[in-house]
Amino acid sequence: MLTIIFYVAITAEAMTAALAAGRRNMDWFGVCVLASVTALGGGTTRDLFLDHYPLYWVANPYILVLVCSAALLTIAIARFVDRLRWPFLLLDGLGLVVFTIIGCDVAMEIGAHPIIVLVSGMVTGIVGGILRDVLCNDIPLVFRGELYATVSLVTGAVYFFGLAAGLQGDLVILVAMAVGFPLRVLALLRRWQMPKFVYDKELR
Amino acid sequence: MLTIIFYVAITAEAMTAALAAGRRNMDWFGVCVLASVTALGGGTTRDLFLDHYPLYWVANPYILVLVCSAALLTIAIARFVDRLRWPFLLLDGLGLVVFTIIGCDVAMEIGAHPIIVLVSGMVTGIVGGILRDVLCNDIPLVFRGELYATVSLVTGAVYFFGLAAGLQGDLVILVAMAVGFPLRVLALLRRWQMPKFVYDKELR
Amino acid sequence: MLTIIFYVAITAEAMTAALAAGRRNMDWFGVCVLASVTALGGGTTRDLFLDHYPLYWVANPYILVLVCSAALLTIAIARFVDRLRWPFLLLDGLGLVVFTIIGCDVAMEIGAHPIIVLVSGMVTGIVGGILRDVLCNDIPLVFRGELYATVSLVTGAVYFFGLAAGLQGDLVILVAMAVGFPLRVLALLRRWQMPKFVYDKELR
Repeated sequence: MLTIIFYVAITAEAMTAALAAGRRNMDWFGVCVLASVTALGGGTTRDLFLDHYPLYWVANPYILVLVCSAALLTIAIARFVDRLRWPFLLLDGLGLVVFTIIGCDVAMEIGAHPIIVLVSGMVTGIVGGILRDVLCNDIPLVFRGELYATVSLVTGAVYFFGLAAGLQGDLVILVAMAVGFPLRVLALLRRWQMPKFVYDKELR
Repeated sequence: MLTIIFYVAITAEAMTAALAAGRRNMDWFGVCVLASVTALGGGTTRDLFLDHYPLYWVANPYILVLVCSAALLTIAIARFVDRLRWPFLLLDGLGLVVFTIIGCDVAMEIGAHPIIVLVSGMVTGIVGGILRDVLCNDIPLVFRGELYATVSLVTGAVYFFGLAAGLQGDLVILVAMAVGFPLRVLALLRRWQMPKFVYDKELR
Repeated sequence: MLTIIFYVAITAEAMTAALAAGRRNMDWFGVCVLASVTALGGGTTRDLFLDHYPLYWVANPYILVLVCSAALLTIAIARFVDRLRWPFLLLDGLGLVVFTIIGCDVAMEIGAHPIIVLVSGMVTGIVGGILRDVLCNDIPLVFRGELYATVSLVTGAVYFFGLAAGLQGDLVILVAMAVGFPLRVLALLRRWQMPKFVYDKELR
């Protein structure tokens, strides 16, 4: 089931990235690159950091085909998707939770320290969006108040400590999703924000 | 011959990157870094993705000396180069084709899937320019209509399928170059553009 | 002693990065990420380039805890730090020198070419600041005249040639620091600048 949600989430990430590319009038190639970087950048960065080769999209290149197809399809159906904000936000939230769990798993497989397990989950969940914003020449959205990284951290913590407590794997996945996903939805509904650090002086 | 064109192309990439640095009033060090990132960034990214160590400029560091010398020479002769747009564009187009072929080669050596072979060629050919634009704080040029990535894809496809068809290696290189390079020149002359995806709504 | 200065420097880098994040009104999470990228990005890039695994912060994740604690502490005490420009600049200069020496060391351990040893020192010393500026959507400061990379290059050269001349290791470290650190301080006091390359024509 995790695998199915993973592909659905990758597709959703690719489609929202394609819309971001369209807002900057990128060409079709740019749309595909931005979709790939957004959907696959988190897992790729994690694999580079952990020396975890081959990269998952090198091992299974049809993921690239899926991402680019989803991006190009978005161009074709763009006029119909502008009322789909909530479905996309929900799929994106589901993706955040699933990417986090997968990222924690990869780090646990290689016996990493618990801190690295949580960091690996967060990198997998959020770096794609950071790279998208850098390529679009924006300050990353995730640094500006969205309760997004926190959801990843909480999900990873529930997953890690659930497994550490000896609970059964599939059960822990369900519990982590049942905590992380509603948290993200609540953050969206209630417009929860991370506190900001506002500093407007130069050092003297 | 591929090796000679490779060095010529790296030099040309370094020089055009140096001019881009000059347009942003970077200092001499920034000129060298931007030249190195532009000329070597594609191959480096490919090697990181494919776990192909040592990186080629770590194995042969005189490439770095060549790139930085070309960049600094550009500063000295800048007043003479402003009529050289076409020579630079032609060398850049030649470089795109050669980088692509080399990138495909590296992926084939490690037995990668055909999709990854083509992606490896494209990454080698175009990521340097993307990194240059990110460091210059621009949205990458290659995402905004230039028929550049397509040339890389076509060149890689000719090369891969030529070899897969059992043709002799040097012949296939020549054919791939004879297809890719004129395609790039035609794209420049006729101002061929990738179609753009223009989307100006926010999701609701 | 190098280790102690290393931790002090990492803490100082994290704190100045946190202030940069505050100037852009980032949230607490963005503050931590920007601090981590700035403090650890140079060494991480070096390790990726040299295939030097595990990354040092994966092997010793308490470095991440230190960096994030320093960043969050900076938020709490921000109102008191705005007169600390010079202490921060001095710690940052010390860090530049120490990061450079450590970067050279890593490259020498794996028997890299002298050019790569110097590049490894420079990457370790300056890439963190470049990544910080890219994430903050600026053209990197180090490309715009600051005598910063040059200090790293000189420090690395003294260190490498001192060791190559057969001098005792701890002595060479002291000499390299005694050359590099005052050079950085002098550059700050005298406002020494790298010459800039100003080029305002488009190629024709």
